[in-house]
Amino acid sequence: MTQATQEFTSWMKSVQVEMEQALVQHLPPVAQKPERLHEAMHYAVLDGGKRVRPLLVFAAGALFDADAVELARAAAAVEMIHAYSLVHDDMPCMDDDALRRGKPTVHVKYDEACALLVGDALQSQAFDILSEGKLAPERQLTMVRLLAKASGSLGMCGGQAIDLASVGVMLSLDDLEQMHRLKTGALLRASVLLGALVGKHLSDAETQALDTYAAAIGLAFQVVDDVLDATADSATLGKTAGKDAADNKPTYVSILGLEQSRALAEKLRVDAHRALEQFGDKAQRLRELADLIVQRKA
Amino acid sequence: MTQATQEFTSWMKSVQVEMEQALVQHLPPVAQKPERLHEAMHYAVLDGGKRVRPLLVFAAGALFDADAVELARAAAAVEMIHAYSLVHDDMPCMDDDALRRGKPTVHVKYDEACALLVGDALQSQAFDILSEGKLAPERQLTMVRLLAKASGSLGMCGGQAIDLASVGVMLSLDDLEQMHRLKTGALLRASVLLGALVGKHLSDAETQALDTYAAAIGLAFQVVDDVLDATADSATLGKTAGKDAADNKPTYVSILGLEQSRALAEKLRVDAHRALEQFGDKAQRLRELADLIVQRKA
Repeated sequence: MTQATQEFTSWMKSVQVEMEQALVQHLPPVAQKPERLHEAMHYAVLDGGKRVRPLLVFAAGALFDADAVELARAAAAVEMIHAYSLVHDDMPCMDDDALRRGKPTVHVKYDEACALLVGDALQSQAFDILSEGKLAPERQLTMVRLLAKASGSLGMCGGQAIDLASVGVMLSLDDLEQMHRLKTGALLRASVLLGALVGKHLSDAETQALDTYAAAIGLAFQVVDDVLDATADSATLGKTAGKDAADNKPTYVSILGLEQSRALAEKLRVDAHRALEQFGDKAQRLRELADLIVQRKA
Repeated sequence: MTQATQEFTSWMKSVQVEMEQALVQHLPPVAQKPERLHEAMHYAVLDGGKRVRPLLVFAAGALFDADAVELARAAAAVEMIHAYSLVHDDMPCMDDDALRRGKPTVHVKYDEACALLVGDALQSQAFDILSEGKLAPERQLTMVRLLAKASGSLGMCGGQAIDLASVGVMLSLDDLEQMHRLKTGALLRASVLLGALVGKHLSDAETQALDTYAAAIGLAFQVVDDVLDATADSATLGKTAGKDAADNKPTYVSILGLEQSRALAEKLRVDAHRALEQFGDKAQRLRELADLIVQRKA
Protein backbone atom coordinates (compact mmCIF):
# COMPACT_ATOMS: atom_id res chain seq x y z
CA MET A 1 0.00 0.00 0.00
CA THR A 2 1.41 3.41 -0.95
CA GLN A 3 1.46 6.21 1.59
CA ALA A 4 -1.31 8.06 -0.31
CA THR A 5 -3.48 4.94 -0.26
CA GLN A 6 -2.85 4.50 3.46
CA GLU A 7 -3.79 8.10 4.14
CA PHE A 8 -6.95 7.79 2.05
CA THR A 9 -7.94 4.56 3.77
CA SER A 10 -7.46 6.10 7.18
CA TRP A 11 -9.45 9.20 6.11
CA MET A 12 -12.31 6.94 5.02
CA LYS A 13 -12.23 5.06 8.31
CA SER A 14 -12.38 8.31 10.26
CA VAL A 15 -15.35 9.58 8.22
CA GLN A 16 -17.12 6.25 8.68
CA VAL A 17 -16.57 6.32 12.45
CA GLU A 18 -17.67 9.96 12.67
CA MET A 19 -20.76 9.17 10.60
CA GLU A 20 -21.84 6.36 12.86
CA GLN A 21 -21.81 8.80 15.79
CA ALA A 22 -23.54 11.53 13.78
CA LEU A 23 -26.27 9.14 12.65
CA VAL A 24 -26.96 8.00 16.21
CA GLN A 25 -27.09 11.60 17.32
CA HIS A 26 -29.47 12.59 14.52
CA LEU A 27 -31.88 9.67 15.04
CA PRO A 28 -34.57 9.74 17.75
CA PRO A 29 -33.38 7.68 20.76
CA VAL A 30 -34.61 4.07 20.88
CA ALA A 31 -35.88 4.63 24.42
CA GLN A 32 -38.33 7.26 23.16
CA LYS A 33 -41.88 6.22 22.27
CA PRO A 34 -42.72 4.57 19.81
CA GLU A 35 -39.74 2.41 20.80
CA ARG A 36 -40.16 -0.34 18.23
CA LEU A 37 -40.27 2.12 15.34
CA HIS A 38 -37.19 3.91 16.66
CA GLU A 39 -35.33 0.63 17.17
CA ALA A 40 -36.14 -0.37 13.59
CA MET A 41 -34.98 3.03 12.30
CA HIS A 42 -31.65 2.52 14.07
CA TYR A 43 -31.46 -1.02 12.66
CA ALA A 44 -32.03 0.29 9.13
CA VAL A 45 -29.45 3.07 9.32
CA LEU A 46 -26.63 2.05 11.65
CA ASP A 47 -23.73 -0.35 11.39
CA GLY A 48 -23.84 -0.95 7.69
CA GLY A 49 -22.81 0.05 4.24
CA LYS A 50 -19.75 1.70 2.82
CA ARG A 51 -21.21 5.17 3.48
CA VAL A 52 -20.39 6.22 -0.08
CA ARG A 53 -22.73 9.23 0.09
CA PRO A 54 -21.31 10.58 3.38
CA LEU A 55 -17.80 10.08 2.00
CA LEU A 56 -18.78 12.20 -1.01
CA VAL A 57 -20.24 14.87 1.26
CA PHE A 58 -17.03 15.06 3.29
CA ALA A 59 -14.78 14.89 0.22
CA ALA A 60 -16.68 17.75 -1.43
CA GLY A 61 -16.64 19.65 1.85
CA ALA A 62 -12.83 19.54 1.73
CA LEU A 63 -12.93 21.72 -1.42
CA PHE A 64 -13.89 24.75 0.67
CA ASP A 65 -12.81 23.77 4.20
CA ALA A 66 -16.40 23.21 5.30
CA ASP A 67 -17.41 22.94 8.95
CA ALA A 68 -17.20 19.30 10.12
CA VAL A 69 -20.33 19.34 12.29
CA GLU A 70 -22.48 20.74 9.49
CA LEU A 71 -20.92 18.29 7.01
CA ALA A 72 -21.90 15.43 9.31
CA ARG A 73 -25.45 16.80 9.48
CA ALA A 74 -25.77 17.01 5.68
CA ALA A 75 -24.19 13.56 5.29
CA ALA A 76 -26.60 12.10 7.86
CA ALA A 77 -29.56 13.59 5.98
CA VAL A 78 -28.44 12.06 2.67
CA GLU A 79 -27.68 8.72 4.31
CA MET A 80 -31.16 8.62 5.88
CA ILE A 81 -32.73 9.16 2.46
CA HIS A 82 -30.53 6.38 1.08
CA ALA A 83 -31.38 4.06 3.99
CA TYR A 84 -35.12 4.71 3.64
CA SER A 85 -34.95 3.89 -0.07
CA LEU A 86 -33.23 0.57 0.67
CA VAL A 87 -35.85 -0.37 3.27
CA HIS A 88 -38.69 0.33 0.83
CA ASP A 89 -36.89 -1.26 -2.16
CA ASP A 90 -36.40 -4.47 -0.23
CA MET A 91 -40.11 -4.86 0.56
CA PRO A 92 -42.08 -7.74 -0.98
CA CYS A 93 -43.99 -5.47 -3.38
CA MET A 94 -40.69 -4.13 -4.76
CA ASP A 95 -37.51 -6.24 -4.99
CA ASP A 96 -38.55 -8.70 -2.25
CA ASP A 97 -35.05 -9.05 -0.83
CA ALA A 98 -34.40 -10.90 2.43
CA LEU A 99 -30.75 -9.93 2.85
CA ARG A 100 -29.12 -6.50 2.97
CA ARG A 101 -25.56 -5.76 4.07
CA GLY A 102 -25.43 -9.38 5.27
CA LYS A 103 -28.36 -8.88 7.67
CA PRO A 104 -32.09 -9.65 7.43
CA THR A 105 -33.93 -6.76 5.75
CA VAL A 106 -36.21 -4.59 7.90
CA HIS A 107 -39.51 -6.21 6.84
CA VAL A 108 -38.02 -9.64 7.59
CA LYS A 109 -36.56 -8.64 10.97
CA TYR A 110 -39.66 -6.60 11.96
CA ASP A 111 -42.67 -6.69 9.65
CA GLU A 112 -43.91 -5.04 6.46
CA ALA A 113 -45.97 -2.33 8.13
CA CYS A 114 -43.00 -1.43 10.29
CA ALA A 115 -40.69 -1.30 7.25
CA LEU A 116 -43.11 1.01 5.48
CA LEU A 117 -43.21 3.38 8.48
CA VAL A 118 -39.43 3.19 9.02
CA GLY A 119 -38.88 4.40 5.48
CA ASP A 120 -41.48 7.14 5.78
CA ALA A 121 -40.13 8.36 9.11
CA LEU A 122 -36.51 8.31 7.91
CA GLN A 123 -37.43 10.54 5.00
CA SER A 124 -39.06 13.07 7.36
CA GLN A 125 -36.08 12.81 9.69
CA ALA A 126 -33.69 13.68 6.86
CA PHE A 127 -35.52 16.94 6.17
CA ASP A 128 -35.92 17.61 9.86
CA ILE A 129 -32.21 17.46 10.63
CA LEU A 130 -31.21 19.33 7.47
CA SER A 131 -33.60 22.15 8.32
CA GLU A 132 -31.99 22.37 11.78
CA GLY A 133 -28.64 23.31 10.21
CA LYS A 134 -26.64 26.29 11.42
CA LEU A 135 -25.55 27.72 8.07
CA ALA A 136 -27.00 30.93 6.61
CA PRO A 137 -30.77 30.27 6.27
CA GLU A 138 -30.76 30.93 2.53
CA ARG A 139 -28.02 28.36 1.89
CA GLN A 140 -29.64 25.91 4.27
CA LEU A 141 -32.89 26.27 2.36
CA THR A 142 -31.06 25.67 -0.93
CA MET A 143 -29.75 22.43 0.58
CA VAL A 144 -33.24 21.28 1.64
CA ARG A 145 -34.51 21.99 -1.88
CA LEU A 146 -31.60 20.13 -3.44
CA LEU A 147 -32.19 17.04 -1.29
CA ALA A 148 -35.95 17.11 -1.89
CA LYS A 149 -35.52 17.31 -5.67
CA ALA A 150 -32.93 14.52 -5.64
CA SER A 151 -35.31 12.30 -3.64
CA GLY A 152 -38.60 12.85 -5.45
CA SER A 153 -40.31 11.78 -8.65
CA LEU A 154 -37.78 13.64 -10.83
CA GLY A 155 -34.95 12.04 -8.85
CA MET A 156 -34.55 8.80 -6.92
CA CYS A 157 -38.26 7.81 -6.72
CA GLY A 158 -38.64 8.50 -10.43
CA GLY A 159 -35.67 6.29 -11.25
CA GLN A 160 -37.16 3.58 -9.11
CA ALA A 161 -40.45 3.85 -11.04
CA ILE A 162 -38.64 3.60 -14.39
CA ASP A 163 -36.68 0.62 -13.06
CA LEU A 164 -39.89 -1.18 -12.05
CA ALA A 165 -41.44 -0.52 -15.44
CA SER A 166 -38.37 -1.90 -17.22
CA VAL A 167 -38.37 -5.44 -15.81
CA GLY A 168 -38.41 -7.82 -18.78
CA VAL A 169 -38.17 -4.90 -21.23
CA MET A 170 -35.18 -4.48 -23.55
CA LEU A 171 -33.96 -0.96 -22.68
CA SER A 172 -31.75 1.09 -24.96
CA LEU A 173 -28.45 2.26 -23.51
CA ASP A 174 -29.88 5.80 -23.29
CA ASP A 175 -32.95 4.65 -21.35
CA LEU A 176 -30.82 2.56 -19.00
CA GLU A 177 -28.58 5.56 -18.41
CA GLN A 178 -31.53 7.84 -17.70
CA MET A 179 -32.96 5.31 -15.24
CA HIS A 180 -29.71 5.13 -13.28
CA ARG A 181 -29.10 8.87 -13.50
CA LEU A 182 -32.30 9.23 -11.47
CA LYS A 183 -32.28 6.07 -9.36
CA THR A 184 -28.79 6.31 -7.89
CA GLY A 185 -27.18 9.26 -9.66
CA ALA A 186 -29.49 11.95 -8.26
CA LEU A 187 -28.57 11.22 -4.65
CA LEU A 188 -24.84 10.89 -5.39
CA ARG A 189 -25.00 14.28 -7.13
CA ALA A 190 -26.85 15.72 -4.14
CA SER A 191 -24.13 14.38 -1.83
CA VAL A 192 -21.38 16.16 -3.75
CA LEU A 193 -23.27 19.45 -4.03
CA LEU A 194 -24.44 19.39 -0.39
CA GLY A 195 -20.88 18.86 0.84
CA ALA A 196 -19.64 21.76 -1.26
CA LEU A 197 -22.58 23.96 -0.17
CA VAL A 198 -21.72 23.44 3.49
CA GLY A 199 -18.46 25.19 2.59
CA LYS A 200 -19.85 28.11 0.63
CA HIS A 201 -22.36 29.39 -1.89
CA LEU A 202 -21.35 27.89 -5.26
CA SER A 203 -20.68 29.78 -8.49
CA ASP A 204 -22.30 28.44 -11.66
CA ALA A 205 -18.91 27.22 -12.90
CA GLU A 206 -18.30 25.31 -9.66
CA THR A 207 -21.77 23.77 -9.74
CA GLN A 208 -21.23 22.77 -13.37
CA ALA A 209 -17.89 21.10 -12.68
CA LEU A 210 -19.25 19.21 -9.66
CA ASP A 211 -22.29 18.15 -11.69
CA THR A 212 -20.03 16.70 -14.38
CA TYR A 213 -17.97 14.87 -11.74
CA ALA A 214 -21.09 13.55 -10.00
CA ALA A 215 -22.68 12.39 -13.26
CA ALA A 216 -19.54 10.46 -14.18
CA ILE A 217 -19.13 8.71 -10.83
CA GLY A 218 -22.87 8.10 -10.56
CA LEU A 219 -22.89 6.24 -13.84
CA ALA A 220 -19.61 4.49 -13.04
CA PHE A 221 -21.07 3.34 -9.73
CA GLN A 222 -23.92 1.60 -11.54
CA VAL A 223 -21.78 0.10 -14.30
CA VAL A 224 -19.48 -1.37 -11.65
CA ASP A 225 -22.50 -2.60 -9.66
CA ASP A 226 -23.69 -4.49 -12.73
CA VAL A 227 -20.21 -5.93 -13.33
CA LEU A 228 -19.99 -7.09 -9.71
CA ASP A 229 -23.52 -8.50 -9.76
CA ALA A 230 -22.48 -10.62 -12.72
CA THR A 231 -19.07 -11.68 -11.39
CA ALA A 232 -18.91 -11.66 -7.57
CA ASP A 233 -20.61 -13.98 -5.09
CA SER A 234 -23.28 -13.14 -2.47
CA ALA A 235 -20.91 -13.46 0.49
CA THR A 236 -18.54 -10.82 -0.98
CA LEU A 237 -21.39 -8.47 -1.92
CA GLY A 238 -23.39 -8.89 1.30
CA LYS A 239 -26.51 -9.21 -0.86
CA THR A 240 -27.95 -11.70 -3.31
CA ALA A 241 -25.63 -11.84 -6.38
CA GLY A 242 -26.90 -12.46 -9.90
CA LYS A 243 -30.32 -11.16 -8.86
CA ASP A 244 -30.71 -8.62 -11.67
CA ALA A 245 -30.09 -11.23 -14.33
CA ALA A 246 -32.42 -13.67 -12.57
CA ASP A 247 -35.10 -10.94 -12.38
CA ASN A 248 -34.60 -10.29 -16.10
CA LYS A 249 -33.62 -6.67 -15.43
CA PRO A 250 -31.57 -4.86 -18.07
CA THR A 251 -27.97 -4.17 -16.95
CA TYR A 252 -24.84 -2.70 -18.53
CA VAL A 253 -23.41 -6.20 -18.71
CA SER A 254 -26.49 -7.55 -20.50
CA ILE A 255 -26.39 -4.71 -23.04
CA LEU A 256 -22.64 -4.01 -23.46
CA GLY A 257 -21.06 -7.24 -22.29
CA LEU A 258 -18.48 -7.54 -19.50
CA GLU A 259 -15.37 -6.13 -21.17
CA GLN A 260 -17.06 -3.08 -22.68
CA SER A 261 -18.72 -2.39 -19.34
CA ARG A 262 -15.32 -2.40 -17.62
CA ALA A 263 -13.92 -0.07 -20.29
CA LEU A 264 -16.86 2.30 -19.83
CA ALA A 265 -16.26 2.43 -16.07
CA GLU A 266 -12.62 3.34 -16.63
CA LYS A 267 -13.55 6.06 -19.15
CA LEU A 268 -15.98 7.55 -16.63
CA ARG A 269 -13.26 7.54 -13.96
CA VAL A 270 -11.04 9.63 -16.24
CA ASP A 271 -13.97 11.98 -17.01
CA ALA A 272 -14.51 12.47 -13.29
CA HIS A 273 -10.85 13.40 -12.76
CA ARG A 274 -10.93 15.86 -15.63
CA ALA A 275 -13.99 17.65 -14.20
CA LEU A 276 -12.09 18.39 -11.00
CA GLU A 277 -9.11 20.18 -12.57
CA GLN A 278 -10.13 23.69 -11.47
CA PHE A 279 -10.14 22.68 -7.80
CA GLY A 280 -6.47 21.64 -7.60
CA ASP A 281 -5.16 19.73 -4.58
CA LYS A 282 -8.30 20.23 -2.52
CA ALA A 283 -10.15 17.81 -4.80
CA GLN A 284 -7.83 14.95 -3.86
CA ARG A 285 -10.46 13.06 -1.83
CA LEU A 286 -13.02 13.39 -4.62
CA ARG A 287 -10.46 11.95 -7.07
CA GLU A 288 -9.65 9.09 -4.76
CA LEU A 289 -13.36 8.32 -4.31
CA ALA A 290 -13.82 8.18 -8.09
CA ASP A 291 -10.97 5.64 -8.22
CA LEU A 292 -12.46 3.66 -5.37
CA ILE A 293 -15.92 3.52 -6.96
CA VAL A 294 -14.50 2.11 -10.18
CA GLN A 295 -11.93 -0.22 -8.63
CA ARG A 296 -13.97 -1.65 -5.72
CA LYS A 297 -14.54 -5.38 -5.47
CA ALA A 298 -17.86 -5.30 -3.57
CA MET B 1 -78.90 28.96 6.40
CA THR B 2 -77.84 32.15 8.18
CA GLN B 3 -75.83 34.77 6.33
CA ALA B 4 -72.72 33.90 8.36
CA THR B 5 -73.08 30.24 7.45
CA GLN B 6 -73.54 31.13 3.79
CA GLU B 7 -70.44 33.29 3.83
CA PHE B 8 -68.43 30.56 5.53
CA THR B 9 -69.65 27.93 3.07
CA SER B 10 -68.72 30.12 0.13
CA TRP B 11 -65.29 30.84 1.67
CA MET B 12 -64.70 27.09 2.02
CA LYS B 13 -65.71 26.49 -1.59
CA SER B 14 -63.33 29.19 -2.78
CA VAL B 15 -60.43 27.73 -0.78
CA GLN B 16 -61.21 24.26 -2.09
CA VAL B 17 -61.28 25.48 -5.69
CA GLU B 18 -58.06 27.45 -5.21
CA MET B 19 -56.41 24.41 -3.61
CA GLU B 20 -57.26 22.17 -6.53
CA GLN B 21 -55.44 24.59 -8.82
CA ALA B 22 -52.53 25.02 -6.43
CA LEU B 23 -52.11 21.25 -6.06
CA VAL B 24 -52.05 20.73 -9.83
CA GLN B 25 -49.52 23.52 -10.15
CA HIS B 26 -47.29 22.08 -7.41
CA LEU B 27 -47.34 18.50 -8.74
CA PRO B 28 -45.04 17.39 -11.58
CA PRO B 29 -47.04 17.33 -14.86
CA VAL B 30 -48.47 13.93 -15.85
CA ALA B 31 -46.86 14.27 -19.30
CA GLN B 32 -43.40 14.30 -17.69
CA LYS B 33 -41.48 11.03 -17.34
CA PRO B 34 -42.11 8.76 -15.38
CA GLU B 35 -45.68 9.36 -16.55
CA ARG B 36 -47.37 6.52 -14.69
CA LEU B 37 -45.92 7.62 -11.35
CA HIS B 38 -46.97 11.21 -12.00
CA GLU B 39 -50.46 10.14 -13.06
CA ALA B 40 -50.80 8.12 -9.86
CA MET B 41 -49.56 11.07 -7.76
CA HIS B 42 -52.27 13.24 -9.32
CA TYR B 43 -54.83 10.49 -8.69
CA ALA B 44 -53.82 10.32 -5.03
CA VAL B 45 -53.95 14.05 -4.40
CA LEU B 46 -56.55 15.65 -6.65
CA ASP B 47 -60.32 15.74 -6.69
CA GLY B 48 -60.96 14.45 -3.24
CA GLY B 49 -61.34 15.11 0.41
CA LYS B 50 -62.68 17.96 2.42
CA ARG B 51 -59.29 19.68 2.41
CA VAL B 52 -59.49 20.21 6.17
CA ARG B 53 -55.76 20.92 6.45
CA PRO B 54 -55.67 23.53 3.67
CA LEU B 55 -58.77 25.15 5.20
CA LEU B 56 -56.89 25.40 8.51
CA VAL B 57 -53.84 26.89 6.75
CA PHE B 58 -55.99 29.55 5.08
CA ALA B 59 -58.04 30.23 8.22
CA ALA B 60 -54.88 30.71 10.28
CA GLY B 61 -53.40 32.84 7.52
CA ALA B 62 -56.36 35.20 7.92
CA LEU B 63 -55.12 36.04 11.44
CA PHE B 64 -52.24 38.07 9.99
CA ASP B 65 -53.40 38.84 6.44
CA ALA B 66 -50.98 36.32 4.94
CA ASP B 67 -50.10 36.26 1.24
CA ALA B 68 -52.54 33.99 -0.65
CA VAL B 69 -49.97 32.46 -3.02
CA GLU B 70 -47.66 31.47 -0.16
CA LEU B 71 -50.63 30.17 1.84
CA ALA B 72 -51.57 27.95 -1.10
CA ARG B 73 -47.99 26.67 -1.25
CA ALA B 74 -47.93 25.79 2.46
CA ALA B 75 -51.39 24.23 2.21
CA ALA B 76 -50.31 22.15 -0.79
CA ALA B 77 -47.28 20.90 1.11
CA VAL B 78 -49.39 19.79 4.10
CA GLU B 79 -52.00 18.22 1.84
CA MET B 80 -49.32 16.22 0.01
CA ILE B 81 -48.06 14.84 3.32
CA HIS B 82 -51.65 13.97 4.24
CA ALA B 83 -52.28 12.36 0.84
CA TYR B 84 -49.07 10.30 1.01
CA SER B 85 -50.03 9.03 4.47
CA LEU B 86 -53.43 7.89 3.16
CA VAL B 87 -51.86 6.07 0.21
CA HIS B 88 -49.47 4.19 2.50
CA ASP B 89 -52.09 3.58 5.23
CA ASP B 90 -54.41 1.98 2.68
CA MET B 91 -51.80 -0.56 1.52
CA PRO B 92 -52.32 -4.28 2.24
CA CYS B 93 -49.59 -4.38 4.91
CA MET B 94 -51.31 -1.56 6.81
CA ASP B 95 -55.11 -1.05 6.83
CA ASP B 96 -55.71 -2.93 3.55
CA ASP B 97 -58.46 -0.61 2.38
CA ALA B 98 -59.90 -0.81 -1.14
CA LEU B 99 -61.99 2.35 -1.02
CA ARG B 100 -60.96 5.94 -0.28
CA ARG B 101 -63.06 9.04 -0.87
CA GLY B 102 -65.42 6.77 -2.81
CA LYS B 103 -62.71 5.73 -5.30
CA PRO B 104 -60.40 2.68 -5.52
CA THR B 105 -57.26 3.22 -3.43
CA VAL B 106 -53.96 3.78 -5.24
CA HIS B 107 -52.61 0.24 -4.83
CA VAL B 108 -55.92 -1.14 -6.18
CA LYS B 109 -56.09 1.27 -9.13
CA TYR B 110 -52.34 0.95 -9.90
CA ASP B 111 -50.32 -1.60 -7.93
CA GLU B 112 -48.56 -1.90 -4.57
CA ALA B 113 -45.10 -0.91 -5.77
CA CYS B 114 -46.59 2.15 -7.43
CA ALA B 115 -48.49 3.10 -4.26
CA LEU B 116 -45.30 2.81 -2.23
CA LEU B 117 -43.45 5.13 -4.64
CA VAL B 118 -46.37 7.56 -4.91
CA GLY B 119 -46.29 8.03 -1.14
CA ASP B 120 -42.52 8.39 -1.06
CA ALA B 121 -42.46 10.87 -3.93
CA LEU B 122 -45.32 12.94 -2.47
CA GLN B 123 -43.42 13.34 0.77
CA SER B 124 -40.35 14.63 -1.12
CA GLN B 125 -42.58 16.89 -3.19
CA ALA B 126 -44.03 18.46 -0.05
CA PHE B 127 -40.58 19.49 1.18
CA ASP B 128 -39.54 20.52 -2.31
CA ILE B 129 -42.38 22.99 -2.78
CA LEU B 130 -42.18 24.32 0.77
CA SER B 131 -38.46 24.99 0.36
CA GLU B 132 -39.26 26.96 -2.81
CA GLY B 133 -41.30 29.48 -0.82
CA LYS B 134 -40.76 33.21 -1.20
CA LEU B 135 -40.92 34.22 2.48
CA ALA B 136 -37.86 35.29 4.48
CA PRO B 137 -35.45 32.28 4.35
CA GLU B 138 -35.34 31.96 8.14
CA ARG B 139 -39.13 31.75 8.43
CA GLN B 140 -39.33 29.42 5.45
CA LEU B 141 -36.79 27.14 7.12
CA THR B 142 -38.84 27.19 10.33
CA MET B 143 -41.81 26.02 8.27
CA VAL B 144 -39.84 23.14 6.71
CA ARG B 145 -38.71 22.07 10.18
CA LEU B 146 -42.25 22.26 11.54
CA LEU B 147 -43.65 20.11 8.73
CA ALA B 148 -40.81 17.58 9.01
CA LYS B 149 -41.31 17.17 12.76
CA ALA B 150 -45.08 16.85 12.34
CA SER B 151 -44.58 14.12 9.73
CA GLY B 152 -41.88 11.98 11.33
CA SER B 153 -41.55 9.40 14.07
CA LEU B 154 -42.42 11.93 16.79
CA GLY B 155 -45.43 13.05 14.75
CA MET B 156 -47.69 11.37 12.22
CA CYS B 157 -45.54 8.28 11.50
CA GLY B 158 -45.08 7.72 15.22
CA GLY B 159 -48.83 7.88 15.79
CA GLN B 160 -49.31 5.39 12.99
CA ALA B 161 -46.82 3.03 14.66
CA ILE B 162 -48.61 3.30 18.01
CA ASP B 163 -51.91 2.70 16.24
CA LEU B 164 -50.58 -0.49 14.61
CA ALA B 165 -49.25 -1.74 17.92
CA SER B 166 -52.61 -1.13 19.60
CA VAL B 167 -54.80 -3.41 17.47
CA GLY B 168 -56.56 -5.80 19.82
CA VAL B 169 -55.06 -4.05 22.86
CA MET B 170 -57.23 -2.29 25.46
CA LEU B 171 -55.78 1.23 25.49
CA SER B 172 -56.30 3.66 28.33
CA LEU B 173 -57.90 6.98 27.44
CA ASP B 174 -54.49 8.66 27.87
CA ASP B 175 -52.77 6.25 25.48
CA LEU B 176 -55.56 6.63 22.93
CA GLU B 177 -55.24 10.40 23.18
CA GLN B 178 -51.47 10.29 22.74
CA MET B 179 -51.84 8.08 19.67
CA HIS B 180 -54.26 10.47 18.01
CA ARG B 181 -52.30 13.55 19.08
CA LEU B 182 -49.49 12.16 16.91
CA LYS B 183 -51.37 10.33 14.18
CA THR B 184 -53.73 13.10 13.09
CA GLY B 185 -53.16 15.92 15.58
CA ALA B 186 -49.56 16.66 14.61
CA LEU B 187 -50.43 17.52 11.02
CA LEU B 188 -53.51 19.55 11.98
CA ARG B 189 -51.35 21.53 14.39
CA ALA B 190 -48.76 22.03 11.65
CA SER B 191 -51.50 23.32 9.34
CA VAL B 192 -52.57 25.98 11.82
CA LEU B 193 -49.02 27.08 12.63
CA LEU B 194 -47.87 27.07 8.99
CA GLY B 195 -50.80 29.26 7.98
CA ALA B 196 -50.02 31.73 10.75
CA LEU B 197 -46.29 31.65 9.92
CA VAL B 198 -46.98 32.62 6.32
CA GLY B 199 -48.36 35.82 7.83
CA LYS B 200 -45.56 36.61 10.25
CA HIS B 201 -43.05 35.35 12.78
CA LEU B 202 -45.06 34.20 15.82
CA SER B 203 -44.61 35.30 19.43
CA ASP B 204 -44.51 32.59 22.09
CA ALA B 205 -47.96 33.64 23.31
CA GLU B 206 -49.39 33.37 19.80
CA THR B 207 -47.79 29.96 19.26
CA GLN B 208 -49.14 28.78 22.60
CA ALA B 209 -52.69 29.91 21.85
CA LEU B 210 -52.66 28.31 18.39
CA ASP B 211 -51.23 25.12 19.90
CA THR B 212 -54.09 24.95 22.37
CA TYR B 213 -56.61 25.55 19.59
CA ALA B 214 -54.99 22.93 17.35
CA ALA B 215 -54.80 20.33 20.13
CA ALA B 216 -58.50 20.78 20.88
CA ILE B 217 -59.69 20.51 17.27
CA GLY B 218 -57.24 17.68 16.57
CA LEU B 219 -58.70 15.60 19.34
CA ALA B 220 -62.25 16.65 18.46
CA PHE B 221 -61.63 15.58 14.87
CA GLN B 222 -60.75 12.07 16.01
CA VAL B 223 -63.57 11.77 18.54
CA VAL B 224 -66.06 12.77 15.84
CA ASP B 225 -64.41 10.34 13.38
CA ASP B 226 -64.99 7.54 15.85
CA VAL B 227 -68.60 8.61 16.41
CA LEU B 228 -69.22 8.72 12.66
CA ASP B 229 -67.47 5.38 12.10
CA ALA B 230 -69.88 3.86 14.62
CA THR B 231 -73.05 5.58 13.38
CA ALA B 232 -72.83 6.54 9.66
CA ASP B 233 -72.86 4.28 6.60
CA SER B 234 -70.07 3.75 4.02
CA ALA B 235 -71.83 5.71 1.29
CA THR B 236 -72.02 8.84 3.47
CA LEU B 237 -68.42 8.48 4.68
CA GLY B 238 -66.91 7.59 1.27
CA LYS B 239 -64.94 4.87 3.06
CA THR B 240 -65.70 1.57 4.77
CA ALA B 241 -67.77 2.31 7.91
CA GLY B 242 -67.52 0.27 11.10
CA LYS B 243 -64.01 -0.80 10.08
CA ASP B 244 -62.29 0.20 13.33
CA ALA B 245 -64.69 -1.87 15.41
CA ALA B 246 -64.37 -4.80 12.97
CA ASP B 247 -60.56 -4.52 13.18
CA ASN B 248 -60.82 -4.53 16.97
CA LYS B 249 -59.15 -1.10 17.19
CA PRO B 250 -59.72 0.97 20.32
CA THR B 251 -61.90 4.04 19.69
CA TYR B 252 -63.44 6.82 21.79
CA VAL B 253 -66.81 5.16 21.32
CA SER B 254 -65.52 1.79 22.52
CA ILE B 255 -63.96 3.36 25.61
CA LEU B 256 -66.36 6.22 26.47
CA GLY B 257 -69.57 5.16 24.74
CA LEU B 258 -71.48 7.24 22.19
CA GLU B 259 -73.05 9.91 24.39
CA GLN B 260 -69.90 10.71 26.38
CA SER B 261 -67.91 10.86 23.14
CA ARG B 262 -70.35 13.43 21.76
CA ALA B 263 -70.12 15.45 24.97
CA LEU B 264 -66.31 15.38 24.80
CA ALA B 265 -66.37 16.69 21.23
CA GLU B 266 -68.58 19.58 22.28
CA LYS B 267 -66.32 20.41 25.23
CA LEU B 268 -63.30 20.46 22.90
CA ARG B 269 -65.15 22.80 20.54
CA VAL B 270 -65.64 25.25 23.39
CA ASP B 271 -61.96 24.90 24.41
CA ALA B 272 -60.93 25.71 20.84
CA HIS B 273 -63.03 28.89 20.83
CA ARG B 274 -61.60 30.00 24.16
CA ALA B 275 -58.01 29.63 22.90
CA LEU B 276 -58.70 32.09 20.09
CA GLU B 277 -59.91 34.97 22.26
CA GLN B 278 -56.76 37.11 21.88
CA PHE B 279 -57.12 37.17 18.09
CA GLY B 280 -60.55 38.85 17.96
CA ASP B 281 -62.53 38.97 14.72
CA LYS B 282 -59.67 37.74 12.55
CA ALA B 283 -60.04 34.28 14.10
CA GLN B 284 -63.58 33.89 12.77
CA ARG B 285 -62.67 31.27 10.17
CA LEU B 286 -60.73 29.22 12.73
CA ARG B 287 -63.81 29.34 15.02
CA GLU B 288 -66.09 28.28 12.21
CA LEU B 289 -63.76 25.39 11.32
CA ALA B 290 -63.82 24.17 14.92
CA ASP B 291 -67.61 24.17 14.73
CA LEU B 292 -67.56 22.37 11.40
CA ILE B 293 -65.18 19.66 12.63
CA VAL B 294 -67.43 18.86 15.58
CA GLN B 295 -70.76 19.18 13.78
CA ARG B 296 -69.91 17.44 10.47
CA LYS B 297 -71.90 14.40 9.36
CA ALA B 298 -69.16 12.72 7.26
